[in-house]
This record gives sequence, C-alpha cells and structure tokens, in this order.
Amino acid sequence: MNAPAWNRRDQQRRERLSRAASLSGLNGRLVATAAAVPLLEAVLQPGDRVCLEGNNQKQADFLAQALTQVDPQRVHDLHMVQSVLALPEHLDVFDSGIAKRLDFSFSGPQGARLAKLVGSGGIEIGAIHTYLELFARYFVDLTPKVALVAAHAADRQGNLYTGPNTEDTPAIVEATAFSGGIVIAQVNEIVDVLPRIDIPADWVDFVVQAPRPNLIEPLFTRDPAQISEIQVLMAMMAIKGIYAEYGVQRLNHGIGFDTAAIELLLPTYGESLGLKGQICKHWALNPHPALIPAIEAGWVESVHSFGSELGMEDYIRARSDVFFTGADGSLRSNRAFCQAAGHYACDLFIGSTLQIDLQGNSSTATLGRIAGFGGAPNMGADARGRRHASPAWLKAGEQARAGRQGAAGTPRGQKLVVQMVETFREHMQPAFVERLDAWTLQEQARMDLPPIMIYGEDVTHILTEEGIANLLLCRSDEEREQAIRGVAGYTAVGLARDARMVENLRDRGVIKRPIDLGIDSRDATRNLLAARSMRDLVRASGGLYSPPKRFRNW
Amino acid sequence: MNAPAWNRRDQQRRERLSRAASLSGLNGRLVATAAAVPLLEAVLQPGDRVCLEGNNQKQADFLAQALTQVDPQRVHDLHMVQSVLALPEHLDVFDSGIAKRLDFSFSGPQGARLAKLVGSGGIEIGAIHTYLELFARYFVDLTPKVALVAAHAADRQGNLYTGPNTEDTPAIVEATAFSGGIVIAQVNEIVDVLPRIDIPADWVDFVVQAPRPNLIEPLFTRDPAQISEIQVLMAMMAIKGIYAEYGVQRLNHGIGFDTAAIELLLPTYGESLGLKGQICKHWALNPHPALIPAIEAGWVESVHSFGSELGMEDYIRARSDVFFTGADGSLRSNRAFCQAAGHYACDLFIGSTLQIDLQGNSSTATLGRIAGFGGAPNMGADARGRRHASPAWLKAGEQARAGRQGAAGTPRGQKLVVQMVETFREHMQPAFVERLDAWTLQEQARMDLPPIMIYGEDVTHILTEEGIANLLLCRSDEEREQAIRGVAGYTAVGLARDARMVENLRDRGVIKRPIDLGIDSRDATRNLLAARSMRDLVRASGGLYSPPKRFRNW
Repeated sequence: MNAPAWNRRDQQRRERLSRAASLSGLNGRLVATAAAVPLLEAVLQPGDRVCLEGNNQKQADFLAQALTQVDPQRVHDLHMVQSVLALPEHLDVFDSGIAKRLDFSFSGPQGARLAKLVGSGGIEIGAIHTYLELFARYFVDLTPKVALVAAHAADRQGNLYTGPNTEDTPAIVEATAFSGGIVIAQVNEIVDVLPRIDIPADWVDFVVQAPRPNLIEPLFTRDPAQISEIQVLMAMMAIKGIYAEYGVQRLNHGIGFDTAAIELLLPTYGESLGLKGQICKHWALNPHPALIPAIEAGWVESVHSFGSELGMEDYIRARSDVFFTGADGSLRSNRAFCQAAGHYACDLFIGSTLQIDLQGNSSTATLGRIAGFGGAPNMGADARGRRHASPAWLKAGEQARAGRQGAAGTPRGQKLVVQMVETFREHMQPAFVERLDAWTLQEQARMDLPPIMIYGEDVTHILTEEGIANLLLCRSDEEREQAIRGVAGYTAVGLARDARMVENLRDRGVIKRPIDLGIDSRDATRNLLAARSMRDLVRASGGLYSPPKRFRNW
Repeated sequence: MNAPAWNRRDQQRRERLSRAASLSGLNGRLVATAAAVPLLEAVLQPGDRVCLEGNNQKQADFLAQALTQVDPQRVHDLHMVQSVLALPEHLDVFDSGIAKRLDFSFSGPQGARLAKLVGSGGIEIGAIHTYLELFARYFVDLTPKVALVAAHAADRQGNLYTGPNTEDTPAIVEATAFSGGIVIAQVNEIVDVLPRIDIPADWVDFVVQAPRPNLIEPLFTRDPAQISEIQVLMAMMAIKGIYAEYGVQRLNHGIGFDTAAIELLLPTYGESLGLKGQICKHWALNPHPALIPAIEAGWVESVHSFGSELGMEDYIRARSDVFFTGADGSLRSNRAFCQAAGHYACDLFIGSTLQIDLQGNSSTATLGRIAGFGGAPNMGADARGRRHASPAWLKAGEQARAGRQGAAGTPRGQKLVVQMVETFREHMQPAFVERLDAWTLQEQARMDLPPIMIYGEDVTHILTEEGIANLLLCRSDEEREQAIRGVAGYTAVGLARDARMVENLRDRGVIKRPIDLGIDSRDATRNLLAARSMRDLVRASGGLYSPPKRFRNW
C-alpha cells in the first residue's frame, strides 16, 4: 500500500483543517472576526506558498493585516504570490520574517519600499509577471497552498458573492481549491440570500466577516478638468491618425489622462469625422467614467471589465446592454478573462510609459523603484497565436511585412501597440532616453533581464505632441531610430535627429505631424472634450454616476 | 425616460424566458427530455449567436441533436460559435438552414464535409481560432445569446457538476450568463446532492436530462504497441538534444505517438541520463495514459489539464498529489486556464504537423479539408507578454538574439516550439514541401490569410529521424532554409540541400545528427519504452487505469 504517498496534499489539508476545527469562534465555514489570526496560525505552515488577494483595485486588507499578526515563530518563510502589492501590510510580513519570497505583477505604491527591501536582502523576488502570466503559473509551478481572498458577501453555507469587483478571485480560488489547498475569504457581510452566487461554497473552506468593508481603489477615475490641450491634440491624432486609419473596433485603453482624452473626444471630434460605428465599438476596459459620454452617444456596443470602478454601480446597472452584468444587475468583472480578451480579441492597445529608448523599448521602471507592469505586457504584445482576421490587424501586418522575405515575409496580421507620451513628463524629465533606467535597475536588483514593459519589437506606433511615428513601416534599425527621434521633440534624443532623414520618413508617411493628418493644432482646445469636469460626467450619466468623495469638487 | 433602450438584452431575456415558461414539461429549471426541442424553439430567435458546446472531447450531443430538430421556419440563420465541430449534427444545422454562420477552432472529423459546405456556399465561416482566442472573443464581439452546454449532473436547484471533463464549460457559461443570455445544460443525471458544485444554479437557466450520457472521446490515448523504433529514436533526440539541453521543466505535449514515445522514455532513457528532477516536472497536459510510468517513477510534480481522459478516473483519484482534483477526488480540468498555462507558464511546446515549408511555416491544413488547429497556435507561439525567466527560456532567447542589433537584439527570453515529424508521413507523403497546401486552401476558401498552424518565426526546432535543426541559431533566410533541408531526409526538399552548407551548419551545431548527440541509432529499440502495450500501462498504474474497450486488446 503506497497509496498514501500520492495523496500527501489531501492528508496535509485534513491535518490543517483539523487544527482549525479545534479553534473557538468557528461555526461551520463561518469564522468570527476575532478568530482570524488563530485561524491563520492553525492552517499555515512555514514555507507555504500563499496567495494573498492584492488586486489592482480590491484588497483582502483585513486578512493582510491578520497575516502581519501571526506569530513568526510558528509561521515564517512564506512564499507570497499575489498580483499587486498595494498596502504597507503586504511588505510588513517580509520585515517580520513571516514571508520571505515574492512573485508578483505590480507594486505601484510600494515600489520604492520594495526596492529597499530587495537591496537589504529582506526579500527574495521570484519574478515580476504580467497578470495573466501569474495566474497561469498558479496552475503550473506557483500553485498556492493557502489563498486569502476578498468577497463582498457570503451566505451561511459559505457561498460567495464577489459582485462588481470580482477581479482575480475566480482564478485564485480555482487554483487553490483544486490542488488540496485551503481557501479563506474575508467578506463585508454575511446574508441569508446572496444577490447571486459567484463562487460555490464547495470551493471555500472558511469565511471571515471583516470589521470593515474591503478596500477598493477608484484607480480608473480621471477628472476631465485636468486634461490639457496638449492631451487633446494627441487624442485627436490618435483618433484620426490611428483609430480611423486602421478602423480599430476592438481595443483596450491604459490608465491615464491621455487615453481619457481620447474617450472624451469620441462623441465630439470623432463624431465630426463621421467615425461613429466605424471605430471603438468593443472594449476590454474597466468601467471608465470618462467613457460615459461616448456610451450615451451610442458609440459603445460592449465593455468587458477586469474590475469595476467605484461610483459606476448604478450607471452600469442602467446600461446593462453595454456592460457584462449578472441577473441581479451588478457588474461581472474577471481579470483573467478580460486579459485574455485584451490579448486575443483586441486589435489595439494604447498606453503611456515613462521612458522610451532608441530601439522603441519602453518601461515604467525607474531607479529606486521596483514597480512591475500589471497587464501592459500581455496586452502590449503581438498575440502571435491569434488566427482570426480583422481589417485593422491585417493592415498592421501588411505594413510590417511588405517587401520582406522568408519567414519574416510570410503574411500574418499584427496587433497595434501604441505608446502615447508627451516628450517631457513631470519635472521636465524627458520621455525619450538613450538608455532606459531599466538597465541600471537590472544590475541593482540582479535581474535576469532588464524590466522592459513593452519591447521595441512589439510597439507599432509612438505618439507624441510632435506627431506619430509608425514603426511598422521602418525597414532598418537606423530608420526606426530616426522615426523615434523624429517625434521626440526638444528632448536630447529629439534634438539629435538627422533632420534630412526625418523629413524623408515624413515624406514616406512613417512620421506624421498634426498638419499631415489635417489637424490644426489651434483646434485642440478643451472645448472639444465631451465633459470638462467631474460634474459634467455626472450630468452626462443622467445622475447615475456617483463619484467618490475625493472627486467631488463642485 | 430612455432607460429601456439600454436594457434591451435583459428585456429580450425575459421575453424568451416567459415563452419557455408556458411549455409543459418544466419544473423550475428542470426540463423534461421530451421538451428539449420545444424549449429551443421557445428561446431561440432567427440570427441568434449560439454557442453549442462541442469540445475537443466532451460533446453536448443531445442538445446538438435537438437543435437539428427545431422548425427552420421558426429558428434559422443562427450564428454558431463553438470550439470543435465533431458530430455530423454540428453541420446538419447548416444543411437545413437553421444555422448560417460559423466561428470555430477545430473541425477534425468534419473537416472534409465543412470544406464542401463552404464550397457550395452553404455556410459562412467567420474565422478559425485557437481555443483561448475564441473564448476571448466570447467576451468581446462573439458573445453568445444562447449557450447549449453539457455537464455530468445537476441537482434539483440547477447547480451543475461538470466533473473531470469540465473543459470549456466555465468560459462559455460565464460569457453567456453575464450578458443577458440564456444557458441550457444537458446532464446525464439529476441528483439530490452533487459531488461538488462546479457551476452555480444562478448562472444556469435550464437543465435537461439527456436520454444517454454525453459523448466523450478518449482522444489522448495512444497504444504503446504502435510506437515505432523511429519514434523511439526521435524521442531520444528530443530528450537529450532539447529537453536536457535547455533544462525544460514546464511543458506541453501535443497529441500523437511521437510525444507518447517521449513520455514512455522518461523513466528508462531519461533515467539513464540522470535527468530525473532536472526536466519534465510540470505539465499542461490532459491525463495521458502514456505518462503513467513517468508519474509512477516520480518524475512528475504536477499536471494541469484541458480536459480529462476516459479510463483515467481512478488513477487520477489515487494520484491527487499530481493532478488538479476537487475535494471529491475527481479531476478539475479547465481549457481556458490550461491554455493560459500552456501559453505563459510553459517553456516548451512540442507537436507534430503534416507539412513544413522552407521558411519553417507548418500546417495541418490539407486540400479539401478545413480542419483548424485547436490549441497549437496558442501554445506554439512565442508568448511575448511573458516577463518571468527560466533557464530554458533565457537560453532560447540568447540563442535567437546573439549578435543581433537594435530592437531585435534587446535581450529577451523565448519559448521553445518544436515540430517533431518523420520526413515521410502516411502513404509516403513528404512532410517537407516547397509550398504548403495552406496557400491553395486560402484561395479555395477565400481566406484572408493561409491557414498556417505555427509560423516559421515561432518555430525554434525541427526534429526528424535525421536530426534536429535549431532555427534559433540561423542568421539568414538561406541558413534557415538549409537547416530545414538538412533534416528533411530523402524528401525532394531534403535532396535539394546544399551539402556543403549543411555540413557547415552541422559544424556550428545548428544541425545535430543522432551521432552528434551521442545517440547510437541501434539503441533505439522498443525495449526502451517503459510500457510496450496497453496492458503494460494498466500494470504500471497498479490496475487503476481502465482503458476504454476499444483499447483492450489483450
């Protein structure tokens, strides 16, 4: 009988559950708030791989805090796998020795502290991932032993309602529950009947009522009042020079004022160009408030979302033709499926970056910070497994391959990947550099590769206030370099251009200035924005959008 | 009040449900077998987009049959979106006008009939997709209005147990249920208590008990008795020349005897090379019976599966440390997550093909058949969004980029994509051709692009009985062509090689013959196989594996 040797996971699971069963404060799957720390001490073992739900928006913050309070003598050297490091507690566990190793995707607000911890040897980093890549590894070699997740509500059987901010939860729970792991959920409330069941109780071991609602960050809200006229100009170029040029119907927008400007120009500038119904019909996108005017004007057929956005609940419910919602009327988001959609079902990704080099490599990594990239590498890469055609994808592929021979000349489509930046960012830091900080960061943090967000090989267009560089049309490293210099404005990189070669690229349509696109820069005023303030957005929504307090400036 | 205009989907859903409610044979969500056709006639409308669950293995065959029986006067011009066309019924609906348009991934057994239907104008093909790409479009622009799925069992509330063959069901149901669509499931049985709940009743509208269990095809069973000594030789080269060379720990195998031979050589030849624990630890793979000896010998740490395999149920239950299983002990498969795993968490994909051209493009498309490619394009493409490193991935990337300049020289890892073919396939058809049939097929079926399965740009190695061509090391179209000719044996393509250039490539290690790898072809005998028959596999499993009848030849 060697059967037990093949069911160690199941046996360990039973042992953990039986240790938990002896705790006070348990009632079936329901765990009293005060029992959270003892529960973690009962189920966790040193060296465990633990997935703490730290999302882009939703945080299992109560469980994160509870984890900092376990006895490091009993629970230590954990291997944390989580999408986002957002809270101080996410790093506190490394200071105290409770955790030791980390695999993650994004660490925005904790990036500087993370870099220090790495420098002092207080943390081992496995790798930085794009979200879908991290989820994929949950099913291969980073499977969690224990998952600590957040849901909106549970019923008394332990069924979960994740509601609008479902985000990463299904991927985490599935990987853990079906590998002999243990799933613990914090919930805001326990109710008799859930609006809908999102995760069956069979997949959940423990439900803890948190003392306060889980933290959710309104990450995708951009106040139109802060959009500049340069951003309006760039948005006009994006719409006319790229979206209309390729007939882009399915797309994803990154976070930021640049893309918010595009969203707000669709019903005004886009309408004036007769583009309604021709572009921007299907989106893989969180429910951006800046998209409200375009939705109201009938531009948008569908939006599938990674997560939700605070204040958009009533609007989403009232626009269920556009958003993915449950029979209860609330949003269904799902980061895994939306990243798959962004990868395989979109023709264009457009986002911003902090630095671009002469090869077109771009990165948001800067010295002294280890930030990661979230979803950008997944959506900002050519999806080479894609086999269905669309006009935008075919045209990009044709431009990239025209005149090429051999394997590189075999006809194939290509995703449009646009980097949209002003030539100078905050504090007059140039967006164009000879050498990315990523190279220095690689040395500092002893990484295998420089932390490049989007590779030059995958970028198709660089858009600045000076114009659009279409890298698909470049046929040599030298042309690519001059195309980039040619839209780099008054940065050192831009000033070092070969003026004659740049003019030649312009003649060939590789570089297009606003005037080449028939855009008069004087028309680029804030008056073109379909909403110029938060109040305008609320008004456009018919009062259905209810912005979080900090955005209520009227 | 223009609110209703934004909730048309919800309103239509209510209308459909209310038409269904007036049928006899309904009891809550449960629908009598005889009411299946009337139910479809009640909920379907002309032009609807319908996802019929046709998987690689599991088929919603009863609902497929019911769909052929609806009145074409009432239900016509449907747009079918489904992974696999496996059953005659899947095309019958086009003959009768019930359906008109098709988006799909794979049509193996129906490929020839499909080509005829296209030729006669009896069907419009939207596109051929790789699985994950099709699922992605379910959330963007191919969202189903009605989904017809198969589950193993339901309880009286309508909760579903999909069991080992979960496959595509979660992706289909999620896309449909959260977009105002209608989900109808056929089940083999209705029980009081399910072994586990896989899909909550909230996501399901109707459950029909089918008169017989749904069809499941044991697609991944290969009888070791049919493995040839040439395949043994090729498997030795794969293990020593690629897996060991790169230290491949995470991988996917395609279907076929070539890769079954590799699986069966791990505990014998692989063991003799001291590779246990060094390679092949984590798999994105269906539960291949041929993997049993390697599992028993302790090679395999984890297997995540797209679907299950008939006869492996008891073995999986007894080896739950290796497979993803639920608390009830049965397998949890999930094609969407396993394809994500194959794309982002594996270092190597190895599969076979029917034709390879001089650019390295390969395809299983042949004249008179429209077959599609299933998961191969997704797993057989470089995942350019990937950001975590592994030794195998770094080494492949270094080989591809050494000495290159500009964007193409920026350091980056690369996935190993291996095409493993004998130089001649059945009926002495050469596997190497000057021109793929895909080009003619493109003209015949008026496709936007030739149906190429894996592009030459993504293939890293071609392995034949003559040797391994490492395309990563080629630096020009000419080198690539000669590297391919150099392993193409006595095919016309192989005979036309430039012998001197091929020897030069061999000196540089671009081409490796068995002897260059220290492999003596005389050692390549069937004695090296850890199991030489189905009976051996059963024995290796300790009697836990129970092959389907047709494979029981002892």
